[in-house]
Amino acid sequence: MDSKEQILKRSVEAKEIYLPHISADPVVFGFDQNELKVLLAKMHYRKQWMLPGGYVRKDEDLDEAVIRILKSRTGVTNVFLEEFGIFGKKNRSEYYFEDFDDTLFQKQRFISVGYYALYNSSEIYPVADEISETCEWIYLKQLPEIELAMDHREIIEKALLTLREKISYKPIGYNLLPEKFTFPELQKLYEAILGKNLNRGNFYKKIKNSGVLRKLDEQRRGGAHKSPDLYSFDQVNYTKALEDGLNSW
Amino acid sequence: MDSKEQILKRSVEAKEIYLPHISADPVVFGFDQNELKVLLAKMHYRKQWMLPGGYVRKDEDLDEAVIRILKSRTGVTNVFLEEFGIFGKKNRSEYYFEDFDDTLFQKQRFISVGYYALYNSSEIYPVADEISETCEWIYLKQLPEIELAMDHREIIEKALLTLREKISYKPIGYNLLPEKFTFPELQKLYEAILGKNLNRGNFYKKIKNSGVLRKLDEQRRGGAHKSPDLYSFDQVNYTKALEDGLNSW
Repeated sequence: MDSKEQILKRSVEAKEIYLPHISADPVVFGFDQNELKVLLAKMHYRKQWMLPGGYVRKDEDLDEAVIRILKSRTGVTNVFLEEFGIFGKKNRSEYYFEDFDDTLFQKQRFISVGYYALYNSSEIYPVADEISETCEWIYLKQLPEIELAMDHREIIEKALLTLREKISYKPIGYNLLPEKFTFPELQKLYEAILGKNLNRGNFYKKIKNSGVLRKLDEQRRGGAHKSPDLYSFDQVNYTKALEDGLNSW
Repeated sequence: MDSKEQILKRSVEAKEIYLPHISADPVVFGFDQNELKVLLAKMHYRKQWMLPGGYVRKDEDLDEAVIRILKSRTGVTNVFLEEFGIFGKKNRSEYYFEDFDDTLFQKQRFISVGYYALYNSSEIYPVADEISETCEWIYLKQLPEIELAMDHREIIEKALLTLREKISYKPIGYNLLPEKFTFPELQKLYEAILGKNLNRGNFYKKIKNSGVLRKLDEQRRGGAHKSPDLYSFDQVNYTKALEDGLNSW
């Protein structure tokens, strides 16, 4: 529940604490069951889904703000967030609180900074805050069926495009896959991010040439098929590729 | 000249027109004499160099703002600007107007959005606005010798890092080189951006494999050396590589 009085009370508090006109929206992607999902909160007010965003305190740096916001809205900590875009259309947010007059803090024009992270969702247990009915993982394939507030669908799409671009020049997967994994498992991760199937041979060749993988002297036993080879990431090469890029000049 | 009265007058006007706490800083790189340079303004007040930034009008989108700001501060138009980072440390800007009291619009905390562009500098003739002594191209190699305001050195460095990363997965050069150019000329552009020399053979192979160049059936005449082959960009492949990336999966 979120009464009109509670929203007005938060407006008074917010004017004391936060900078006007600036907000931050974290887009946290998880990988699970060979699918990507995103962390969203369903608000009491209007019952729409939103990114778990918030405002910037007058006394904190912007990059401190987004970490505090994510924690306070979802309970999630230890996520490395990276800025990917800024959403500054003049009419993007004011409509949301149209039942209130223009003095409401939440109703002013907000320019929002988007941050994204890709995380092992099995380590994250989101918790709703007081302004949300629920906070949970929503699979990307479910997004067309739910109602998203303001331009949050556009923000999620931009985050996904950034991630897709990123994996063309940076390695990915450490932190998302188990310590030992098979080549098909790695390919599934790439396919989930890219939203398309990849040719197995080309993928194998590209990943192999990148040098970030180490083939282990063991196979995975127990399946119905021929036991597949196991791999792990080569720490040194993986870190170097993260710093220099996969296709550095 | 910029008197205390003029700065106070602009503060009164700014409070009417602009959103508080948000600014935009364009980092326009030019390429000339095989060197990179950046467009900077030297301010009357404090005599420091700054990026030609400004504030966001209450009635305009953020991406409209940065184009208007660049034009009004430098006279430069027709530049495609891309957002690359946001600078939000809590104490990054207030010191600058420390001679004034805290009601001055210009003195408040600003979170600044950085936009960059790479442009053919021979087509740009910068013009100073009323708050600047001069607006001009400064070669990157001159930057250590000049005094830059606030965190503007850090903003330029982040823009350059973004550009370096970008050329590992997107083609570059159209718009910066003449219609017909030699391979060494293209290599010089990459070297200027990367700030290091490249192995000629490796560079040739990578560019050739990317498919963005078309070898012309002519050579450049008149030099002391063997007439070098001329190339131009293949429009179709270049555009496709811009959209898909050079190393798409």
